[in-house]
Amino acid sequence: MAPQTAPNQVTLPASLLLDSGETLAGVTIAYESYGSLSAAKDNAILVCHALTGDQYLASTHPLTGKPGWWERMVGPDKPIDTDRFFVICANVIGSCMGTTGPASPTADGQPYAMRFPVITIRDMVRGLVGLLDGLGIAQLHAVVGGSMGGMQALSLAANFPDRAARVLAIATTARHSAQNIAFHEVGRQAIMADPAWADGDYYAQAQRPIAGLAVARMAAHITYLSEAGLTEKFGRRLQDKADGSAGAKSFGFDADFQVESYLRYQGSGFTRRFDANSYLYITRAMDYFDLAEEHGGQLAKAFAGTAARFCLVSFDSDWLYPTAESRHVVHALNAAGAAVSFVELSAPFGHDSFLLDVPALDRVVKGFLE
Amino acid sequence: MAPQTAPNQVTLPASLLLDSGETLAGVTIAYESYGSLSAAKDNAILVCHALTGDQYLASTHPLTGKPGWWERMVGPDKPIDTDRFFVICANVIGSCMGTTGPASPTADGQPYAMRFPVITIRDMVRGLVGLLDGLGIAQLHAVVGGSMGGMQALSLAANFPDRAARVLAIATTARHSAQNIAFHEVGRQAIMADPAWADGDYYAQAQRPIAGLAVARMAAHITYLSEAGLTEKFGRRLQDKADGSAGAKSFGFDADFQVESYLRYQGSGFTRRFDANSYLYITRAMDYFDLAEEHGGQLAKAFAGTAARFCLVSFDSDWLYPTAESRHVVHALNAAGAAVSFVELSAPFGHDSFLLDVPALDRVVKGFLE
Repeated sequence: MAPQTAPNQVTLPASLLLDSGETLAGVTIAYESYGSLSAAKDNAILVCHALTGDQYLASTHPLTGKPGWWERMVGPDKPIDTDRFFVICANVIGSCMGTTGPASPTADGQPYAMRFPVITIRDMVRGLVGLLDGLGIAQLHAVVGGSMGGMQALSLAANFPDRAARVLAIATTARHSAQNIAFHEVGRQAIMADPAWADGDYYAQAQRPIAGLAVARMAAHITYLSEAGLTEKFGRRLQDKADGSAGAKSFGFDADFQVESYLRYQGSGFTRRFDANSYLYITRAMDYFDLAEEHGGQLAKAFAGTAARFCLVSFDSDWLYPTAESRHVVHALNAAGAAVSFVELSAPFGHDSFLLDVPALDRVVKGFLE
Repeated sequence: MAPQTAPNQVTLPASLLLDSGETLAGVTIAYESYGSLSAAKDNAILVCHALTGDQYLASTHPLTGKPGWWERMVGPDKPIDTDRFFVICANVIGSCMGTTGPASPTADGQPYAMRFPVITIRDMVRGLVGLLDGLGIAQLHAVVGGSMGGMQALSLAANFPDRAARVLAIATTARHSAQNIAFHEVGRQAIMADPAWADGDYYAQAQRPIAGLAVARMAAHITYLSEAGLTEKFGRRLQDKADGSAGAKSFGFDADFQVESYLRYQGSGFTRRFDANSYLYITRAMDYFDLAEEHGGQLAKAFAGTAARFCLVSFDSDWLYPTAESRHVVHALNAAGAAVSFVELSAPFGHDSFLLDVPALDRVVKGFLE
């Protein structure tokens, strides 16, 4: 699809009361939409993005020039069919692609930086509901998300039960585990160890904490892939040399192995499109996520009386949010008497399977949205 | 056992020819020993240490004041019985506890730093064999090691087949996988991203790259533990507050979760006893390790004609070097006609199980050394 030159933005009329107790005023939500909203406003699908995702779901990313992150899933005649549905994707609060976040100016004209309040997944959802209000959409045909997007989908179902008729949560969890928190903490420490981070006040500096952010991304990226997938994709293969000849060990610290080169590329590419403080805030929101805790310690209570239909999808090679986490949600939905279907798909790509070529996922998504 | 105030050291009479083709002259090997060498010099057991280990196997670490890292396994009447065996543990080449490494002075009086040659596991073993020569030990009763120590044990068996009658390799692998390399690369990038690293020339500086080294340790540490172990040990439990009251989310970036606090502690403690350049060199050696590649691409060839008895031990919760890696070695030993026993032990601690309280491991070790 053609890139849009300016992001669609809505500024929420009311301040948001956050889980922290703080309020956030003048919140702007940047979003993209695809397809047409019906007169009855009953054909909207909200797609929620993951940690480092954005609203460029099915259109070219303005910074990278790359296709939208779910072009394979969203478009005319695709599983999320834009000939039929009005598909919305909004940048979450705390992020850096037009929605209010740490890089946004506060009342004094300076960026919030670390003055930005710590937010939660529910706070992100409050922002999304504000966007739906602004668009006049009382109830979504469906809310859909993978990874952190799935957390938002579940949170919306739990906290705003009338706002979505269908909830599709892919490769996600109802709470961050100790290991999930640990990996995020490594990333945060990598950013905060970078002197260019400067306690978050780097926006006016020539240098940004790109070295720390790249390390954070590299560590996280390993968790998005499966061990078997890494072995198949890279194994112990060496990089070809600059002159095109076959690789050999350098007995130095250059990227000898293809997997090293790939990780460095992932790390450095990421720093060109993402803000380090946003990474801190969004990982914190994910670590704080525990849907049961918000609802008296019982996950079933989060979904009590829901009329929505749910679909949970996990991948057998996902060790970040393994199938057991989806099953835990399914059991809670069963206990709440909700309509729920669940499928574990076989795919070799680990957690990233939800973004990649998994035809079985296409069929599940298309079928559930009928 | 009582700490020794000065390390035992041997300086090798000949230069070492390394796998890189470079030579390393004047190599000093620092070691500790426990028990007494028999007159026939036939009761020696060499224990090889892991990545961040050292020779303080069963005696107090001079920097940390902590007990030896395998006190539970090595001592009078323990599975590696020092009443019976002469037990040796040497700091590997490239490390930083007295053996020649990047922090050691070169001929010009300055530390090697990044002028130190890139070494391999086999180079470490060459150093260990030099030590055995110096001690007059023609054949070990056994070589024993966990993790990188197991790599050394296998490498010694393959490259110096007459030097050990028994080979006990625990929680290890014959080659580093793409995922193993990826995690190490994150650690190296974290160190090299630290401005205090200064291309490795930090020894004369007031500041050392402790922030980067701590991040490297944190990332690696997650891989040493199992997801289930982390959940049992920490779960989502919050830190108690400084005043002793029950923890609550701070809505900030302090260590709210116990697992965050634990990781930070692991990271910072490590920097007080380990050299960042040593971390670079030793992880590189591990990533280069591929015992089959050294022997014509067939692992069985590495063990052709061996007369040693082998024992491989893996742990069911170890996802760093999972059971499949040990089984791969066992199959090669079977193909080579070697005498081999293999056991997968059940233990909840992940890769670190080999260091922790696993009574079944004690029995296996004791039985194999009979």
